[in-house]
Amino acid sequence: MKIPNFAEIKKAHNRIKNFIHRTPVLTCQSLNKITGAEIYFKCENFQKVGAFKIRGATNAVFSLGQVGVEKGVATHSSGNHAAALAQAAKWRGVKSYVVMPENSPRVKINAVKEYGAEIQFCKPTLQAREKGLEEVIERTGATFIHSYDNYNVICGQGTVALELLEEVTDLDIVIAPVGGGGLLSGTAIATTALTSGTKIIAAEPKGADDAYRSFYSGKIIILKNPDTIADGLLTCLCELTFAIIKKYVNEILTVSEIDIKRAMRYIWERMKIIVEPSAAVPFGVVLSNKKKFKGKKIGIILSGGNVELGKW
Amino acid sequence: MKIPNFAEIKKAHNRIKNFIHRTPVLTCQSLNKITGAEIYFKCENFQKVGAFKIRGATNAVFSLGQVGVEKGVATHSSGNHAAALAQAAKWRGVKSYVVMPENSPRVKINAVKEYGAEIQFCKPTLQAREKGLEEVIERTGATFIHSYDNYNVICGQGTVALELLEEVTDLDIVIAPVGGGGLLSGTAIATTALTSGTKIIAAEPKGADDAYRSFYSGKIIILKNPDTIADGLLTCLCELTFAIIKKYVNEILTVSEIDIKRAMRYIWERMKIIVEPSAAVPFGVVLSNKKKFKGKKIGIILSGGNVELGKW
Repeated sequence: MKIPNFAEIKKAHNRIKNFIHRTPVLTCQSLNKITGAEIYFKCENFQKVGAFKIRGATNAVFSLGQVGVEKGVATHSSGNHAAALAQAAKWRGVKSYVVMPENSPRVKINAVKEYGAEIQFCKPTLQAREKGLEEVIERTGATFIHSYDNYNVICGQGTVALELLEEVTDLDIVIAPVGGGGLLSGTAIATTALTSGTKIIAAEPKGADDAYRSFYSGKIIILKNPDTIADGLLTCLCELTFAIIKKYVNEILTVSEIDIKRAMRYIWERMKIIVEPSAAVPFGVVLSNKKKFKGKKIGIILSGGNVELGKW
Repeated sequence: MKIPNFAEIKKAHNRIKNFIHRTPVLTCQSLNKITGAEIYFKCENFQKVGAFKIRGATNAVFSLGQVGVEKGVATHSSGNHAAALAQAAKWRGVKSYVVMPENSPRVKINAVKEYGAEIQFCKPTLQAREKGLEEVIERTGATFIHSYDNYNVICGQGTVALELLEEVTDLDIVIAPVGGGGLLSGTAIATTALTSGTKIIAAEPKGADDAYRSFYSGKIIILKNPDTIADGLLTCLCELTFAIIKKYVNEILTVSEIDIKRAMRYIWERMKIIVEPSAAVPFGVVLSNKKKFKGKKIGIILSGGNVELGKW
């Protein structure tokens, strides 16, 4: 199993930087006051397709040779990776096929359609998703691009931390959310390469704490029915991301649903920006562990901003 | 009646610029695509206290001599001007008194408290507000700073357009929302001074269209029961703002409630930023008059971001 190194993340950045936004790093006096910390938010909610996922998908699609893409690319995803792959395929000028659970958020289905992917709906189980994808690949010959169990996707996700650390130095801590571990893996590799002594902390919802359990038991643990409002973090680690996380991550902290919502509300209300629940999980970790983070200089990755706006 | 000139707006900018944020000017490909226009959003939702009002209040408070502030400053306001005056007074180191309707949004009451003002609640009528303020001024000797019927407040609000036009040139149109007309007046003076031929359009909710009626009938018309979700635009013009608007504004367009909500939703969903309903009114004008604005280069002032987040 080959673990990406930082040189690959730099290559990924050169490959994708003309397609993606260089997202801003924002600070908020009000949230610094509330937490007693000094927080730098890397705003991937402003990224193309509304999430960091475009980085990994674009790097993966443009890393393939002509033969790899000529029959298109395919994936199964309920959310941001689906839209990201569709957009990346459009940029490369190839077809994309996405298997989506029929209960996926409307806003995400619309986005995937808008970027021109062919959607096939399935029941909302991992089994149904994998079976649907198998059928699509058999029918089309498209190349499967997994949302995190993919070397080039991980390299692409590492470019978030690369940009953050180019702009803010001397961070005591970098916090990224963990679902399948793609963003966290890339973040950990880039942060280890670019800093000395910056701690890498993963933030995970208590209701989907497979990474936490895996990390502290030493073997991959798969949850049967993970349940959290942070719908981007329901996935579980794979061998590749687990190996990287074991090697580079210092600590995993979990957050309750109430603290995820509280964190999201604070970010909306004080920073005036929209983040999705999954993106609020790292700030939720800080909010619910104020003593631990007091006085620290912290980089937080706000992973995305695609949320159903029920009320409005 | 003395109308402010652009030199006064420049002086105001020098007076306040170390207190306030220089807010970003953002663009959004997705909203450009939807409208067929090229829109530059000046993001006062990211401003201190969450709205442009801090500019006028700060300029007014710091324009007063020592005698003018030694007994404090006072106003009546249901919203952003209250918080702005409280913050400006705090910066100057003087007391502030705010008369607020008892049904003011919780988030705004909390903000005013946080900035250290003494709040006196009253019934939600203009009469009760004015009577409450009279009592406060009699008791304390504080100086009244009206939210828009004030020369220095108008000069302060004009600094929004000053910054916008420093960054973006050759705009065909600038659109500002109109309530009492403070922001619109400052915008109109600055835009007229800094550009040649840039049209100044005001955007107003149909449900509170007193400025529209006044503008096209030539005399100030006061509505009895204005009603709109854009709660920052319920106020009506005064002699001073009406004189400026008649002189410099080209056109006033009104927007339905449904288009205000649609505009706000688009801004939240596509730009991933929080704006309050009043701030969405100018974009609502563009959305509901696509033909008129197609192909135009437009500056829009997003006036504030203080909104009750019901669901979260």
